Amino acid sequence: MDKSTVVGLAAGWGLVALAIILGGVGFGPYIDVPSFIIVVGGTIAVTAGQFEANELKRFVPALKYAFNEIKVEPLPELVEKITFYATEIKKHGVMQIERKVLEEKNPFFKESFQLLVDGTKPDVLVPMLELKNEHMDNRHGAMIALFGNIGGTAGAMGMIGTLVGLVAMLANLSDPAAVGPAMAVALLTTMYGALIGTLFAGIIESKLAQKHKAEMVANEVVLSGAAMIAAEESIGNIKMKLNAILVEIPE
Amino acid sequence: MDKSTVVGLAAGWGLVALAIILGGVGFGPYIDVPSFIIVVGGTIAVTAGQFEANELKRFVPALKYAFNEIKVEPLPELVEKITFYATEIKKHGVMQIERKVLEEKNPFFKESFQLLVDGTKPDVLVPMLELKNEHMDNRHGAMIALFGNIGGTAGAMGMIGTLVGLVAMLANLSDPAAVGPAMAVALLTTMYGALIGTLFAGIIESKLAQKHKAEMVANEVVLSGAAMIAAEESIGNIKMKLNAILVEIPE
Amino acid sequence: MDKSTVVGLAAGWGLVALAIILGGVGFGPYIDVPSFIIVVGGTIAVTAGQFEANELKRFVPALKYAFNEIKVEPLPELVEKITFYATEIKKHGVMQIERKVLEEKNPFFKESFQLLVDGTKPDVLVPMLELKNEHMDNRHGAMIALFGNIGGTAGAMGMIGTLVGLVAMLANLSDPAAVGPAMAVALLTTMYGALIGTLFAGIIESKLAQKHKAEMVANEVVLSGAAMIAAEESIGNIKMKLNAILVEIPE
Amino acid sequence: MDKSTVVGLAAGWGLVALAIILGGVGFGPYIDVPSFIIVVGGTIAVTAGQFEANELKRFVPALKYAFNEIKVEPLPELVEKITFYATEIKKHGVMQIERKVLEEKNPFFKESFQLLVDGTKPDVLVPMLELKNEHMDNRHGAMIALFGNIGGTAGAMGMIGTLVGLVAMLANLSDPAAVGPAMAVALLTTMYGALIGTLFAGIIESKLAQKHKAEMVANEVVLSGAAMIAAEESIGNIKMKLNAILVEIPE
Amino acid sequence: MDKSTVVGLAAGWGLVALAIILGGVGFGPYIDVPSFIIVVGGTIAVTAGQFEANELKRFVPALKYAFNEIKVEPLPELVEKITFYATEIKKHGVMQIERKVLEEKNPFFKESFQLLVDGTKPDVLVPMLELKNEHMDNRHGAMIALFGNIGGTAGAMGMIGTLVGLVAMLANLSDPAAVGPAMAVALLTTMYGALIGTLFAGIIESKLAQKHKAEMVANEVVLSGAAMIAAEESIGNIKMKLNAILVEIPE
Repeated sequence: MDKSTVVGLAAGWGLVALAIILGGVGFGPYIDVPSFIIVVGGTIAVTAGQFEANELKRFVPALKYAFNEIKVEPLPELVEKITFYATEIKKHGVMQIERKVLEEKNPFFKESFQLLVDGTKPDVLVPMLELKNEHMDNRHGAMIALFGNIGGTAGAMGMIGTLVGLVAMLANLSDPAAVGPAMAVALLTTMYGALIGTLFAGIIESKLAQKHKAEMVANEVVLSGAAMIAAEESIGNIKMKLNAILVEIPE
Repeated sequence: MDKSTVVGLAAGWGLVALAIILGGVGFGPYIDVPSFIIVVGGTIAVTAGQFEANELKRFVPALKYAFNEIKVEPLPELVEKITFYATEIKKHGVMQIERKVLEEKNPFFKESFQLLVDGTKPDVLVPMLELKNEHMDNRHGAMIALFGNIGGTAGAMGMIGTLVGLVAMLANLSDPAAVGPAMAVALLTTMYGALIGTLFAGIIESKLAQKHKAEMVANEVVLSGAAMIAAEESIGNIKMKLNAILVEIPE
Repeated sequence: MDKSTVVGLAAGWGLVALAIILGGVGFGPYIDVPSFIIVVGGTIAVTAGQFEANELKRFVPALKYAFNEIKVEPLPELVEKITFYATEIKKHGVMQIERKVLEEKNPFFKESFQLLVDGTKPDVLVPMLELKNEHMDNRHGAMIALFGNIGGTAGAMGMIGTLVGLVAMLANLSDPAAVGPAMAVALLTTMYGALIGTLFAGIIESKLAQKHKAEMVANEVVLSGAAMIAAEESIGNIKMKLNAILVEIPE
Repeated sequence: MDKSTVVGLAAGWGLVALAIILGGVGFGPYIDVPSFIIVVGGTIAVTAGQFEANELKRFVPALKYAFNEIKVEPLPELVEKITFYATEIKKHGVMQIERKVLEEKNPFFKESFQLLVDGTKPDVLVPMLELKNEHMDNRHGAMIALFGNIGGTAGAMGMIGTLVGLVAMLANLSDPAAVGPAMAVALLTTMYGALIGTLFAGIIESKLAQKHKAEMVANEVVLSGAAMIAAEESIGNIKMKLNAILVEIPE
Repeated sequence: MDKSTVVGLAAGWGLVALAIILGGVGFGPYIDVPSFIIVVGGTIAVTAGQFEANELKRFVPALKYAFNEIKVEPLPELVEKITFYATEIKKHGVMQIERKVLEEKNPFFKESFQLLVDGTKPDVLVPMLELKNEHMDNRHGAMIALFGNIGGTAGAMGMIGTLVGLVAMLANLSDPAAVGPAMAVALLTTMYGALIGTLFAGIIESKLAQKHKAEMVANEVVLSGAAMIAAEESIGNIKMKLNAILVEIPE
C-alpha cells in the first residue's frame, strides 16, 4: 500500500468536505445527481470513445500500480545487490546465483539475471533488455496519458454541464427566487469536473509518472550492471561505476 | 466497427441530452439555428481556409478509420505469425509462403512479406519499409492534426458567436425581460463549440492517435521481423528477440 | 489562386455577418471606430515592435503565398517527372535535358536539375541543396511565426481594449441606461481581436504551414532523386525507392 | 543567504500587504481560516498524493538550496582555478595539489580533481563524471518539478474553494446583504491560490532552475577541464579552450 | 537605434492613450498609484526573487540590445565580405587582412578572422567558435527568458491585484454608489499587467529573439566561411557554398 497516495487522496477529499461543512449550508446544495451523471458519465463516455478497448482495460491495473508500494528497491540497495551478485558470479560461477535469482521480487532484475544465468552474451542481452524497457516505457506512458486525458475531459464535461445549466436558468428567469439555486446547480458540474481533475486524475497521473520514472532509473542501473557482469568486467570497475550514481554530491 | 468509438460518442451525446431533459426546460431553449450555423459553418469555413484541398479530402477516410476496427492484429498474434512465416521460409523456401502472403489483411505485413518473396535484399528492404512507415506517419499525423484543429476552431467560433450575441443583447437592453433568453442564446454558441470540441473532434482525434500508435508499433515489429528473415537469422534468435517485446513484466 | 483559402475566409466572414444580421440589431452596434483602431492599430504597432524590419517586409509575400496555388506538383507527378529525367539522362546524357529544365516551374526542382546539368558531384550537390532547404525552412518558419504572433497579439489587444472600456464604464455609472451600450462597446475589442485571430491570422498561419510542409516533402523527394541521379544509380533502383513513398497502403 | 530570493519574496508579500492596507478595509476581510485550510491543506494533500515519499523529503533541502548562496564560483574564477591546477600538475605532479583539492568547496570540482589525484584515466573519468552530472540533473529536475506542481495545484485548489463558496452563497440568497461578504470569502481561495503560485512556488521553482542551470554549466566546464588535464593536453591549449567560453563578445 | 522597436512601442502606447481619450472619461480613472505599485513593484519583486543577481544585471544591456540597430550585416553583404577576405588571403597571404579585421564592427566576425590571422588550425578554430556561439546562445536565451518571465509575472500580479480589490469592494458593499469606481480600480491592476505583458515585455522578448536568431544565422555563416578559409578550400568552392544560402528561391 502506497501510503502517500492514500493519505493524499483522503486528506484532499476530507478538506473539501470540511470546507463544505464550514460553509454552513450542509452537503445538500453540493449534491445533484443529474450534474454528477453528466460529468462522471460524460467523462467515462468520452474516455471510452477516445481510447482503444485494450488501453481501457489498463485502467484498473494502473490504479493498483498507483496505490501499491513500488517493487523496485532504492538505488543504494540495488547497487549493493548487483555488486553482491557480481562478486558471487566471479567467485563461484553463474550457476551459484540461480536459486537466489528465482526469489527476487523486482521483475526486471529477476529477468535480467535469469538471462545472465542462461549464459546470454552481452550483445544479445543488452538490446533485448533495452527493447523490454522501451516497450514498458510505452505501456506506462499510455497509462499515464489515460489519466491525464480523464482529468482534461472531466474539466470539459464540467464546463458543458454548466453551460447546459445556465441556458436552462436564463431561459426561465420568470421566478427570480429560483435564480440563485439554479445557478448553484449549474456551477456544480464545473466543481465536479475540477474535483475529478485535481483530486483524482491529477493525483493518479502524477503518482504513476513518479513511479514510472523511479522504475526506469532502476531498470537502467540493473541493465548497466547486468551488461558489465556479462562483459566480465572486474568487480572493482563495476563497483566504481555503479557507485558514481549514488554519491550524493551535497547540494 | 470500433465499438468503443460508437459507444463513447453515443453515450456522451445521450448524457448531454439527458442533462437537458432533467433540466426541465425541454430541448427548445437549446436549439437555435443561427447559433448552429455560425459555429458549425464557421468551423467548416475556417478549416477549409486552413488546410489544402488534398488534406480536406482525408476527412471522411479519417472518420472511417476512427470508426472501423483496426486491421492490425495484437502483438502476440503478430509475433506468432512472423515466427510461423520465418519457420516456413527456413523449411520450404520463400516461394512456399507466396500464396499465404497474398491472403494477408494487414497491409504493411502483406507488402513487407511480398518484398521478401521477391527476394529483396535487407539493405534495400529496411530503408524502403522505413520510408513507407515515415510517410504513413506523416499522413496519419496530418489527419490527427486536422481533428485537433477542428476542435480548437469550434471553441473559437463558439466564443465569437457568444460575443456577437452579447453585443446584440447589451445594445438592446430596453426590455429587461428579454435579457435572460437573449443571454441564453448567446451562450449557446459557446456550448455548441464545446460540444463539437469535446464530444466530436476530441474523441476522433484521440482515437485516431491511439490507432496510429498501435499501427506504428505493429509496423515496427513487422519491419524488424522481415529484416531478420531477410538477413537469414536463426529461428531461435528471431523468436527470442520478438518475444522480448511481449513478455509483460508484471506491473 | 488557392480556392480553399479564399472560400474559407469569405465564408467565415460571411457567416459572422449573417449571425449579426440574424441577431436583429443591425451592423450598427458592431462598428466602433476607436475599438477598431486600438485592436488593429495596436496589433500592427506591437508586431512592428516585435519583429525586425526585414521580417515585416515578408508580410505581403507571405499573404500572397497563402492565397496562391502552390507551385509544387503532387508527389506522384513529381516522382514520374524525376523518373523521366533520370531515364533521359541515362539514354541521351545530361545535356539533353538542359532545355526542359529551363522550362520547369517548381523552383527547387529547376535549381537541383540545373546543378545536375552543370555536372555537380553528389558530395557537393547534396549538402548544398540541404543547406538551401534548411534556409528556406527558416524563412518559411519566420513567416508562419509572424502570423501566429499577430493572432496572439490581436487577442491581447482585444482584452486590453475591453479593460479600457470597462474601466470607463464603471467609472461613470451615474446613468444606468448607458451601461448596456457602454459594455457592448467594451466587448467589441475582444470580438475584433478574436475575429482577427481566428478568421485572419489563424487561417493564414495554418495555410502557410500546410503549404510549407507540402513543399518540404516535395523538396526532399527532389533532393533524393537528384542525389540518386548524380550518384548514377540504376533507373530500376531510382524507380523502386521513389515509388515506396507513393504506394498508399490502404488505411 | 541568497539575497535576491529573500528580498524578492519579502518585497512581493510586502507589496500585497501594502495594497491591502491602501484598500482601506483592513486585513480582516482577507483572512479566512477555512479558505486557508482548503487551499494550503489541499495543496499539501494533493502534492503528497502525487509524489513518492522520497521526493517529498526533498522539499526542505530544495527550499534551502533556493535560499542559500550558490556554491559554484563564477565562470571566470572557475577557469582561472582550473588553469592554476593544470599548471601546478604540469610543474610539480598531481600529488602536489592533493591538499588544496581537499579544501575545495565546490563539491563537483572537489570530486573531479580527487579522481585526477587518484590517477583516474580519462576514459573512466569522463563517463563517470557525466553519469554523476546526469543523475544530479535528474534530482534537481525533480525538485524543480515539485515546486512547479505545487504552484499549479494551489491554483486548482483555489478555484475549487471558490466554487464551493459560490455554491454556498447562491444556495442561500435569502439575505441579499450577505451576498457581498460571502462572495468576498469565496474569492479568497482563488487569491490564496494565486499568491502561493506566484509569490512562493513560482519564485522557488524559477530560482531553483536558475541555480541548477548555473551549476550545470560550471560542472561542464570543470568536466572539460579535468578531461583535458587527464588527457595531458598542453597548458596553452587548456587555457585557450577554457577562455573561449569567457570572452564576452560585446552584445 | 532600432526604429521598429521604438515606433512599435510608441505607437502601441499612443493607441492605448487614444482609446482612453476617446472613451470620454479622461485619464483620471486609469491612474491609481496603489494599483501601479502592486503590479510594477510586485513584478520587480517576483523577478528579483526568481533570478540570480548576475542574470538581473543583464536587464539593461538586454533592453539596449532590443533598442539598438543590430550589428550584424545582412547575409548577402556578409557573404560578399567573407569572399573578399578569402580572396585577399589567397592572393596576398593572411597578414594582409590584419589591419582590415581590426576595423570590423561585427564582433564574432572580428574574432573569427583574428584567429585566422593568428594562424589557428581548423581543428582548433571550429570547436572554439562553436563553443563561443553556444555560450552566446545560452546568454541570449537567458535574457529572452527574463522578459518572457516578466510578462507572465505582470499578468499574475495584475490578477492578484484585482482579487485584492474585489475582496475589498465586496466586503464593503454598504454604499452601492461606490461599487462602480471600486470595481474600476480593481480592474486597473489586470489592465496594467496586460499592458506590461503585451506592450513592454512581449515586444522586448520577441525583438530580442528576432535579433538573436539573425545573429546566430550570421555567426554560422561566418563560422563556415572561416572554417573553409582555414581549411584552404578553393575560392570557387567557398563562393558556391556561401551563395547557396543566398539564392532566394522565388516563393
